[in-house]
Amino acid sequence: MSDTELLRTTDTAYDMVFKSAVDFSCIKAAFDLGLFQALAAGPRDLAGLAQKTESVPVRLERFLLTLWQIGLVEKRDQQWALTSLSNQFFTASLEHRNLTMVPFVDYLSTMFEGYYLHLADVVRGNRNFTSFVPHPPRTREDSLYYETLHRSNLYFPIKLLVERAKLEENEHLIDVGGGIGDIASAVCKQFPNINITLINLPNALGLVSENVAANGLEGRITPTAVDMYREPYPTGDALLFSRILYPLGAQFCTMLCQKAFAALEPGGRILILDMIISNPERPNYDYLTHYLGGVGMDFSPFEFKNHNIYPDVLRSAGFVDVQFDEAYDHVLYQAIKPA
Amino acid sequence: MSDTELLRTTDTAYDMVFKSAVDFSCIKAAFDLGLFQALAAGPRDLAGLAQKTESVPVRLERFLLTLWQIGLVEKRDQQWALTSLSNQFFTASLEHRNLTMVPFVDYLSTMFEGYYLHLADVVRGNRNFTSFVPHPPRTREDSLYYETLHRSNLYFPIKLLVERAKLEENEHLIDVGGGIGDIASAVCKQFPNINITLINLPNALGLVSENVAANGLEGRITPTAVDMYREPYPTGDALLFSRILYPLGAQFCTMLCQKAFAALEPGGRILILDMIISNPERPNYDYLTHYLGGVGMDFSPFEFKNHNIYPDVLRSAGFVDVQFDEAYDHVLYQAIKPA
Repeated sequence: MSDTELLRTTDTAYDMVFKSAVDFSCIKAAFDLGLFQALAAGPRDLAGLAQKTESVPVRLERFLLTLWQIGLVEKRDQQWALTSLSNQFFTASLEHRNLTMVPFVDYLSTMFEGYYLHLADVVRGNRNFTSFVPHPPRTREDSLYYETLHRSNLYFPIKLLVERAKLEENEHLIDVGGGIGDIASAVCKQFPNINITLINLPNALGLVSENVAANGLEGRITPTAVDMYREPYPTGDALLFSRILYPLGAQFCTMLCQKAFAALEPGGRILILDMIISNPERPNYDYLTHYLGGVGMDFSPFEFKNHNIYPDVLRSAGFVDVQFDEAYDHVLYQAIKPA
Repeated sequence: MSDTELLRTTDTAYDMVFKSAVDFSCIKAAFDLGLFQALAAGPRDLAGLAQKTESVPVRLERFLLTLWQIGLVEKRDQQWALTSLSNQFFTASLEHRNLTMVPFVDYLSTMFEGYYLHLADVVRGNRNFTSFVPHPPRTREDSLYYETLHRSNLYFPIKLLVERAKLEENEHLIDVGGGIGDIASAVCKQFPNINITLINLPNALGLVSENVAANGLEGRITPTAVDMYREPYPTGDALLFSRILYPLGAQFCTMLCQKAFAALEPGGRILILDMIISNPERPNYDYLTHYLGGVGMDFSPFEFKNHNIYPDVLRSAGFVDVQFDEAYDHVLYQAIKPA
């Protein structure tokens, strides 16, 4: 390698080792201490923050200086305060529920010691992936756990969808695997003529109804229990797979698109919204945390499919007029069932 | 925040949580499996690599696909191979001994479960930093451990030093805390007229002598046991602090520069070579791993000093003609003791 190339790869390797160790351990510790929550209400001085987090002041100060170096706190007039980054992503503010890292930190902090730190054992078959909350969810509480995770990074996919979906003429959208209803609610607000049937598992329906009611959309969004892999879909003039297909291989995607084709009226529209997991220049580390979970399963549902297969998948299922949009690290495919 | 700003900070927060979890656990697992070493000799097919690493092939394949996504392996004709990045930084090749991450991965893998993952306990005073190899080193083996760490990232500071040091006229350099002698050896090769007295702790002197002999520089580099904080330095016409002063506060730096001034002949040159630890736009995560160690010590030697204090420090110790070079994430200050 040339020295220029060596310097570039040095940065990459340093980040992979030093930055990962510092970032992960600092964010975990800040959560364990309740530090972001203690500062969410406003700045505190060192003594007050030490009392609130039950810390030794001299050690807390060194820890705060580290958090300051990595951009998570700042000092204002002798008080410690959150940065806009940590306020947005590391506090539990309700207004950030579609763009927050809190549930992911919670999940990874718990799983790190028991799973991720022992991947060699996993690869050798001496340790398996076991979720600490049953998946698929068995109770309302299980569902709340997963729905809280899944709604935490919906801000930008929702933005792409409401900006680019061509649903002005549609009246009845089927939202397959629509989670807690945040996406459906945003679609209803953007497209006043549309009503939505939201498909989820039985245990999640109560949560969806409550979320829909909180958004004042009771009449327009109807949650329904359907097994999206085994049962036929309700009929409509539009159908959305929002972050459902991205980890599935071509064969599985084709099968689900055929079910969508069967449910749509002639002239109906299919929409596929996915995060990008297949850009070699830009690994999707969110997806990779799930993919690593699959290393410890007997049968892993995860693949690294490139989203550029969708035009062929859609055409093979009978759709025409395939359109494609990409923004905010997400893609949106749309196509039509011939009239 | 604007959506543009939100998208930018989303990237930052995702990297801090997802990328750190993936990178750290994958690199640790690859080391635990001996995977980089198994591929260092050349590509292997899945079955052969599974046998060598005692892995379950289907799990190993998923793990390799993850490593491929993050740039650490690649597939060539049905065989798995190292990338140039992992070959450079994650194998133990002797030719990379001034630019390798192996000793750091070794260190952090060991310390992560016992220390970094429990920083909240550390901040609360319930856990202390205890190195698993005594520091300061007590034996030759202890010294070998630390010297191996310290020589692992010297490639670029050595490059800055030999490119910019003005030592053409000098004959006798004192290398204070000169480690195992890699820096001194490079200086000797660049400046044929110079001889070097290398200061280190007594336990390290044998290692230095062996390294110097391996470089064929026995007559030119003389290792000497001196306590660099408490004892006077040998006299010479040039004196180098190479990555010694960067974590020390202004007062400590001034004290050591005064000792350097006392040791130098009139007209002699002082050189300070440091990594940059104080750029708020670019945190130094290498340094931060050490700094976090200091959170769990009663007295931490670490500060976040800005290197821009050196001109004043040097002038207050009596030096003149301060010069400054910056390259490769390192800085070099040079100054003269008046004739």
